[in-house]
Amino acid sequence: MLTRAALEQLDRTDPLAPFRDRFALPPGVVYLDGNSLGPLPRATPGRIAELIAREWGDGLIRSWNDAGWIDLAGRVADGIAQLVGAAKGSVVVADSTSVNLFKLLGAALALRPGRCAIVSERDNFPTDLYVAQGLIAFLGRRHTLRLVDADAVTDAIGGDTAVVMLSHVNYRTGAMHDMAAVTSAAQAHGALALWDLAHSAGAVPVDLAATDADLAVGCGYKFLNGGPGAPAFLYAAPRLHGELRLPITGWLGHAAPFAFEAEYRAAPGLAQATVGTPPILSLAALEVGVGLALEAPMPDVREKSLRQAALLAELIEQAAPGAFRRVTPDDPAQRGSQLCLSHPDAYAIMQSLIARGVIGDFRAPDILRFGITPLTLRYAELWDAAAVLGGIMAEGAWRDPSFAIRRAVT
Amino acid sequence: MLTRAALEQLDRTDPLAPFRDRFALPPGVVYLDGNSLGPLPRATPGRIAELIAREWGDGLIRSWNDAGWIDLAGRVADGIAQLVGAAKGSVVVADSTSVNLFKLLGAALALRPGRCAIVSERDNFPTDLYVAQGLIAFLGRRHTLRLVDADAVTDAIGGDTAVVMLSHVNYRTGAMHDMAAVTSAAQAHGALALWDLAHSAGAVPVDLAATDADLAVGCGYKFLNGGPGAPAFLYAAPRLHGELRLPITGWLGHAAPFAFEAEYRAAPGLAQATVGTPPILSLAALEVGVGLALEAPMPDVREKSLRQAALLAELIEQAAPGAFRRVTPDDPAQRGSQLCLSHPDAYAIMQSLIARGVIGDFRAPDILRFGITPLTLRYAELWDAAAVLGGIMAEGAWRDPSFAIRRAVT
Repeated sequence: MLTRAALEQLDRTDPLAPFRDRFALPPGVVYLDGNSLGPLPRATPGRIAELIAREWGDGLIRSWNDAGWIDLAGRVADGIAQLVGAAKGSVVVADSTSVNLFKLLGAALALRPGRCAIVSERDNFPTDLYVAQGLIAFLGRRHTLRLVDADAVTDAIGGDTAVVMLSHVNYRTGAMHDMAAVTSAAQAHGALALWDLAHSAGAVPVDLAATDADLAVGCGYKFLNGGPGAPAFLYAAPRLHGELRLPITGWLGHAAPFAFEAEYRAAPGLAQATVGTPPILSLAALEVGVGLALEAPMPDVREKSLRQAALLAELIEQAAPGAFRRVTPDDPAQRGSQLCLSHPDAYAIMQSLIARGVIGDFRAPDILRFGITPLTLRYAELWDAAAVLGGIMAEGAWRDPSFAIRRAVT
Repeated sequence: MLTRAALEQLDRTDPLAPFRDRFALPPGVVYLDGNSLGPLPRATPGRIAELIAREWGDGLIRSWNDAGWIDLAGRVADGIAQLVGAAKGSVVVADSTSVNLFKLLGAALALRPGRCAIVSERDNFPTDLYVAQGLIAFLGRRHTLRLVDADAVTDAIGGDTAVVMLSHVNYRTGAMHDMAAVTSAAQAHGALALWDLAHSAGAVPVDLAATDADLAVGCGYKFLNGGPGAPAFLYAAPRLHGELRLPITGWLGHAAPFAFEAEYRAAPGLAQATVGTPPILSLAALEVGVGLALEAPMPDVREKSLRQAALLAELIEQAAPGAFRRVTPDDPAQRGSQLCLSHPDAYAIMQSLIARGVIGDFRAPDILRFGITPLTLRYAELWDAAAVLGGIMAEGAWRDPSFAIRRAVT
């Protein structure tokens, strides 16, 4: 039997424990939804207040130069590049994940003009599929989106495949693809591999260079703790920069953005992927979150994540034996930083949990999703979450009809 | 001869004078660049601090519902719709101006499949041209971008024209197109009219419904005072919503975004134009700015803008007779909310002005650009700005070699 005391002991020896105080989490809450919206770094309010009062208020337009706004996106991009194993200059921070996916998917199709198929996973995050569907329609339906189950992806790649587009870690199940293997399979057929790192960056080891990934996008507001709707990022392998042509070409991606030339000339390298003026407030908040992620050694993060997910599964089984079916794979090589359990009444159970201060998320049709964020999550909180869940299951508390449908944001 | 006392008297009777104290402007500065970056509303720091600490920090993921984040973009869009004469539901706030332009330009070409020409102005803001050039390349160079001088636009529209894409107010010169006349000319040829309102929204009277404009985009960080890189907006006439198909289709534009369906179904109306998760910090700052703009009656704003521009021209002529050539048209019907003057040494003169606290902007190759922002600009400041400029011209102070090249953001 696991005890709360044993978990408290793990907290005392946890090398990542000091990070908890770098975040402002409300009392009375166990937060297991940092993969939907990362918590607030304590340094963020002061940084944003200074930016607004001094840089915007006093500096006004001068702050584009004097306060370094013009280089802010590049600084954040360099930090994210380190987190995902990308060479400097091969990551750009801009726009939303969806818009970045459109840019890279469009560029990928242009790089493989004779090929008609986009291969993806049926259970991919819907927006990724929507972006592909919209792009295909826009290009006159000359391409097809081939959707298969996760374990059938490599078999679905063929000589007609332009690009394989996958989420590295599945948002619903937490299952993780073998990035190197799938990338290699794609490239063996002459296709490009495009990875969505929304649930990977800052959460699991990612080495885009070592896996030879072609293209990637990712999100700033999940494990990077950049705040609600933080800007996203995109990656392209340096070997592609010369031939890459993105569909959306804006002034900040011009070779000489301040010369106001009439003809577009792509900036060298991946800088062409910047389009319009970046959202400075949101970028500054993201910079704080990325800075924190860079301080935490990824091997420690990964070890704690795997251990916490395993412990949470064990504690829940102990508190409510046999109540849930495990959805997230057991094998560490095949899972991200979340624990997903299924139950026919998952929706109402999650609402009941949230009402008691244990904040996870529901994913249709029957999944309780618990995000594991090692920078903030204490081992003892796993005990508390499981105890609350055990109580709910024993009481049948989730049957309270007040737990009506709510909206959620991944 | 104009006197400072006469200008002070205008300030005393100015119905918009109380707005000045709603903004935090630094002492010792005359700010004539609000059309590049609007000044900081005094309410913004408190609103953002509350959002960060209470909504993000304490509310965490729950704030998407409990703090109304999910409706924030829609609320701001409804405010902007009022400012530009658009029916409720026909404006969406999202992404950057450039990305929105890509979305609408792509949709416009799809709406006019047999037509190959995009007509625009040679001196349009370069990013608008870049977006068109990138789109044309992406679509296989089946379209052409026909660039003509401002006064030749209507003659350039023909049966081959899919869309006429223009900035309502020119960023360099301040010249303003007749939106109703050009729209009508475009539609007479079966083409669509797409307007960039970057220098119009909140600055000059705009009535998208009355002029029957088809499509429009606009910027949040200029006259709407939303802060650096604030989100942008887009408009489509309600009569087009049924057939409009945007190239970028993301989950927040889905008819049921939280159902996570595998197939994209466009949300009704213009809601499909939302793509990814919106940047909440930047949106909240924009909401404050838009709220202020809504409080100011546009007839008062326009009257003060025209009067201030005329006075500034007169004061500068008085302070430095014959030194500058006027670029912005004299006719009120043909000018936006800025005064542009040309001089061979415009760049160095503007640097010299900025060094003395009169902040305008330089636009290549020879333009001094002074933005007129009636919510904050005092009449007496026009005197001060002209006096500083007169002093610089008398001394030849701009010849100081320390005024080296700097970057700028429009």
